[in-house]
Amino acid sequence: MIQINEHYLKLQASYLFSDIAKRVNAYQAANPDKKLIRMGIGDVTEPLPAACLEAFHAAIDEMGARTSFRGYGPEQGYDFLRSAIALNEYQSLGCDIAADEIFVSDGAKCDTGNIQEIFGLNNRVAVPDPVYPVYVDTNVMAGRTGTFVQGRYEGLTYLECTPENGYVPALPEGDVDLIYLCFPNNPTGAVATREQLQAWVEYALSRRAIILYDAAYWAFIRDPQIPRSIFEIPGARECAIEFRSFSKNAGFTGTRCAFTVVPKELKAYDGAGEAVLVHKLWNRRHTTKFNGVSYPVQKAAAAIYSDAGRAQVATLIDLYMANAALIRTTMESLGYACVGGDNAPYVWIQTGASSWEFFDRLLQSAGVVCTPGAGFGKCGEGHVRLSAFNSRANVEEALQRIRALLKP
Amino acid sequence: MIQINEHYLKLQASYLFSDIAKRVNAYQAANPDKKLIRMGIGDVTEPLPAACLEAFHAAIDEMGARTSFRGYGPEQGYDFLRSAIALNEYQSLGCDIAADEIFVSDGAKCDTGNIQEIFGLNNRVAVPDPVYPVYVDTNVMAGRTGTFVQGRYEGLTYLECTPENGYVPALPEGDVDLIYLCFPNNPTGAVATREQLQAWVEYALSRRAIILYDAAYWAFIRDPQIPRSIFEIPGARECAIEFRSFSKNAGFTGTRCAFTVVPKELKAYDGAGEAVLVHKLWNRRHTTKFNGVSYPVQKAAAAIYSDAGRAQVATLIDLYMANAALIRTTMESLGYACVGGDNAPYVWIQTGASSWEFFDRLLQSAGVVCTPGAGFGKCGEGHVRLSAFNSRANVEEALQRIRALLKP
Repeated sequence: MIQINEHYLKLQASYLFSDIAKRVNAYQAANPDKKLIRMGIGDVTEPLPAACLEAFHAAIDEMGARTSFRGYGPEQGYDFLRSAIALNEYQSLGCDIAADEIFVSDGAKCDTGNIQEIFGLNNRVAVPDPVYPVYVDTNVMAGRTGTFVQGRYEGLTYLECTPENGYVPALPEGDVDLIYLCFPNNPTGAVATREQLQAWVEYALSRRAIILYDAAYWAFIRDPQIPRSIFEIPGARECAIEFRSFSKNAGFTGTRCAFTVVPKELKAYDGAGEAVLVHKLWNRRHTTKFNGVSYPVQKAAAAIYSDAGRAQVATLIDLYMANAALIRTTMESLGYACVGGDNAPYVWIQTGASSWEFFDRLLQSAGVVCTPGAGFGKCGEGHVRLSAFNSRANVEEALQRIRALLKP
Repeated sequence: MIQINEHYLKLQASYLFSDIAKRVNAYQAANPDKKLIRMGIGDVTEPLPAACLEAFHAAIDEMGARTSFRGYGPEQGYDFLRSAIALNEYQSLGCDIAADEIFVSDGAKCDTGNIQEIFGLNNRVAVPDPVYPVYVDTNVMAGRTGTFVQGRYEGLTYLECTPENGYVPALPEGDVDLIYLCFPNNPTGAVATREQLQAWVEYALSRRAIILYDAAYWAFIRDPQIPRSIFEIPGARECAIEFRSFSKNAGFTGTRCAFTVVPKELKAYDGAGEAVLVHKLWNRRHTTKFNGVSYPVQKAAAAIYSDAGRAQVATLIDLYMANAALIRTTMESLGYACVGGDNAPYVWIQTGASSWEFFDRLLQSAGVVCTPGAGFGKCGEGHVRLSAFNSRANVEEALQRIRALLKP
């Protein structure tokens, strides 16, 4: 008799964004005439950069001629893209990352979800709270946690991100082996300083732990003092994996391209304490369970490193970051304490009320969709996330409605 | 201290196609002037159908305008594609499959690799021998096997496909819970009759087992008596999952689109014997670890269901199947017993020698790359696979060289 993976039964009923969708759909059904403004899900709104479109079209033309047609490509990505990433994202910033340490994939969600497979089930896992749910749920599915009790899974270490610590968690008191960090943070928009990241790297090196560093939002960092990559920190090549994506900088959420950086020095250990290269494990996983990203998509992604592409991406980022600044200053002017919005496209707002209550209030009375912080974990309670991914006109209208609703 | 997933240490050193690539590269380095003809890896060679190219371009234009831009889509795929698949691949053939039972993905390799995650580790797994290595390796990684001993992993049931049974395996003598079947088969090209599939469905229903039915090559079936889908068999909705792909019919190996069909009735069981719907489990897995297929790729895939697309795909299949027929008749005329090539793009040839020896002989003396059967498992020994995915000219030249080398 076929048995299920019983760990799935521990998963909490519904994924945050589905819950939001249900409430939004109910509101729209009840208010068919009201114009809803979605400031919730972190999805981009602006078209793909022209350089990407051009490269995308050209690659499809290649797929239409026998002499230039491409079938299966290398699972890890084409060298033109891996080399461009290594050069432009790392080497040019002084980070020692080689092209063959880049694994191209179809999304950071997949990568941050799949990476745990190559590690043992007895590792002690630390996740931020609030947290991107994928880090948690994929460990639950794998069986690294107990059941869900009072809002948390037993067996996980939650790294609390609170107003008191500026939403950058303290090092754990006990030992952990696998540490998920995300900066600029989703959902809070907080960033970590060089000193803070250095402390995490030192912690990981001293415990032979591994940091899973989600830098999907690196492109929004404006402060030159804030590290864009964990690999700017000395020692990180021995203790960290980094995840990035083309989703947020170049608008690839519907086009799908991302990458993971696994340094060749990085080690994990078998039961006898023998070191095994993580690069080799991930390569085996990636080549066995994945068949590469669509060739035209890889060509489109590589185009962001052209002069035109670079300028167009900068324009996109500027647009979103102007929105972010507006959101933050408006909410602060209404008396709400905020983090984010300066080096991230998210503003994390202390609501002074339950986050789902505040969500419902904004939805029902202003027709604005935010993301309730409680959906990201216990420490998200009392917060909501507003996203800068929108047109300027929508952001202005949403803030006008919010101002009318919330002004003191 | 971070621990690895030790099951990875059981994996055999190298993936079949990497081994082949190494020998081919060595040959090319030593013989830079010789023209190599690749009849090995099952990769398509013809350009994408014009209808797909047109839809692909149009979708990219949509991504370039704010009003038609698409960000995150539904993880399970856009309804336009799910509905088109359900209608054209199933309902029009009398199979009762609904659009919301279709999960669109970026590849059948990913799907057949990932599906095992939703099942428990104690299930008894049966795989064909010879086998597509992904079925085996992903179960090894998950920990459902023992170590590799004398060419096989302990704990797996191998379903032997031999000349004696026409390469369609007999039902296992003992009980198994999870059964991988692939028809038309990769690597052998053998197909299963309605009666043979009915026997498998009855076996699965009587044991409450699940059949994982890989039908990636369904489009090559020419005999109207041979089922294209497991869902043509009564009872299959209660015991089967089907995997298909746009890779081989429409040439999407480098473009990436596939789908999995999970009927809503299909059940698996928890430790207490309570039934759980597999559709719900897979939906949870898919939405948690995957973020949907690139929108332009989905539009390109849907175009194969237009009148023009249908005709263009038929032309492609005809081209490859004419190659297949030529390969089979040539090899038979040289005295080699063969299967496949009539309802599949692969011809599986009894070599009368070790399969790697035969591989090396074809490579060194004819400059032709085949796939050695031993790479697919014990029962693959003494066989090689020749693939019809090539231009007619290449197939003719390869067969001419083979004829010169092997003629009696």
